[in-house]
Amino acid sequence: MSKELYDRAVAISQRAYAPYSNYLVGAVVQTTDGKLFEGVNVENAAYPLGVCAEKSALVKAVSEGYKPGDIAAIGITASPCGGCRQWLYEFQIGEITFLSSSGELVTHSAADLLPHTWDLPS
Amino acid sequence: MSKELYDRAVAISQRAYAPYSNYLVGAVVQTTDGKLFEGVNVENAAYPLGVCAEKSALVKAVSEGYKPGDIAAIGITASPCGGCRQWLYEFQIGEITFLSSSGELVTHSAADLLPHTWDLPS
Amino acid sequence: MSKELYDRAVAISQRAYAPYSNYLVGAVVQTTDGKLFEGVNVENAAYPLGVCAEKSALVKAVSEGYKPGDIAAIGITASPCGGCRQWLYEFQIGEITFLSSSGELVTHSAADLLPHTWDLPS
Amino acid sequence: MSKELYDRAVAISQRAYAPYSNYLVGAVVQTTDGKLFEGVNVENAAYPLGVCAEKSALVKAVSEGYKPGDIAAIGITASPCGGCRQWLYEFQIGEITFLSSSGELVTHSAADLLPHTWDLPS
Repeated sequence: MSKELYDRAVAISQRAYAPYSNYLVGAVVQTTDGKLFEGVNVENAAYPLGVCAEKSALVKAVSEGYKPGDIAAIGITASPCGGCRQWLYEFQIGEITFLSSSGELVTHSAADLLPHTWDLPS
Repeated sequence: MSKELYDRAVAISQRAYAPYSNYLVGAVVQTTDGKLFEGVNVENAAYPLGVCAEKSALVKAVSEGYKPGDIAAIGITASPCGGCRQWLYEFQIGEITFLSSSGELVTHSAADLLPHTWDLPS
Repeated sequence: MSKELYDRAVAISQRAYAPYSNYLVGAVVQTTDGKLFEGVNVENAAYPLGVCAEKSALVKAVSEGYKPGDIAAIGITASPCGGCRQWLYEFQIGEITFLSSSGELVTHSAADLLPHTWDLPS
Repeated sequence: MSKELYDRAVAISQRAYAPYSNYLVGAVVQTTDGKLFEGVNVENAAYPLGVCAEKSALVKAVSEGYKPGDIAAIGITASPCGGCRQWLYEFQIGEITFLSSSGELVTHSAADLLPHTWDLPS
């Protein structure tokens, strides 16, 4: 399954709006009840205001009624940045699949990608 | 039409993930070819990593193939923050409708909301 | 005075860390008791995580004990982005001086740059 | 030394501008040539526009001429969020000291806190 999510992330990445970096990223989340939501990075002329592909996919799921705890997996075209790791952790995602910098498809949990973090308020 | 977008924004706002502020925001964009995309704010335990409702609605449109220039209007439950105004400007949105702080439904262009700004690279 | 703040902003801008955009920005704030704090933009390989020059100058002032209400003026090398305008508004800055896109030195208040905004909680 | 940086971070945290979360954070960076720069979190009514303490300390160092590679260590009052970890990684900080969620003072490298990340452009 994680290979399928990754492949869809690669396909969707062509829709990214990234005129400043020309770096196209795609992400696809799968909910625990089997729905898929796709996201791409959307840049802004004021760079710090941009939104990453992982967040785009997750806000889409939230806008259709999903919450942290409802997302089972995500496929991303590349390793997530630290900001997105914090989101993957907030959403408690168990399977995060992306192409590693050595060119290999790998799967990690959100906790693996954000070691020694603080506990979220519950 | 702007009243309809605003009403949908109010309805969708209930889906916001805002456990830290308890401030629920909704936004609905309409493309020039008549499609609607809904967004809500999604907060994060690390506050600066959150995403506003306006951006949520816009990234959804982008993930389905729309770009700056393809968005005609947006309805928002409240006046957009400065960061979102920069997005509304990047997307060149002509009609932005929201409830003003005096409780009145108003419509402005992106340029009106970001006066004296710099020109985007073209 | 605003010309002096602007000139210092131009001078300090050379210290920006902007390897991704090569766009160097400087900002200098003046407190109501006459102190100056300088800031530059600091980019990150993950673009949305960058920090603008205006925020850099303001966090510096805050780290030395200043708060919203204590900042009288700011000089910036260019027109502030929407995200920074929200900060200038939070800090209630009366005189914001920058080079306009038509190449002229202009001064505006934070309220002028963020019209039709919502009231901050007090 | 890391204990000293942490202690200064705790002391400076009282200067944070955090009226929305009431969560005060402090951070102190030490340059390779022995200078110290202090930062605090600065929140904004629009939550996503806030700036964390770690970034505040680092932009201060940059505004005085330091760059990635010039920062040896940082002490933080709490475990850094993912967004800040990406900054610590960009600045290649070898010693990051903070109070763990179990109440113990720990020191890690930026690479330890952001495993399986992508290589920065060089």
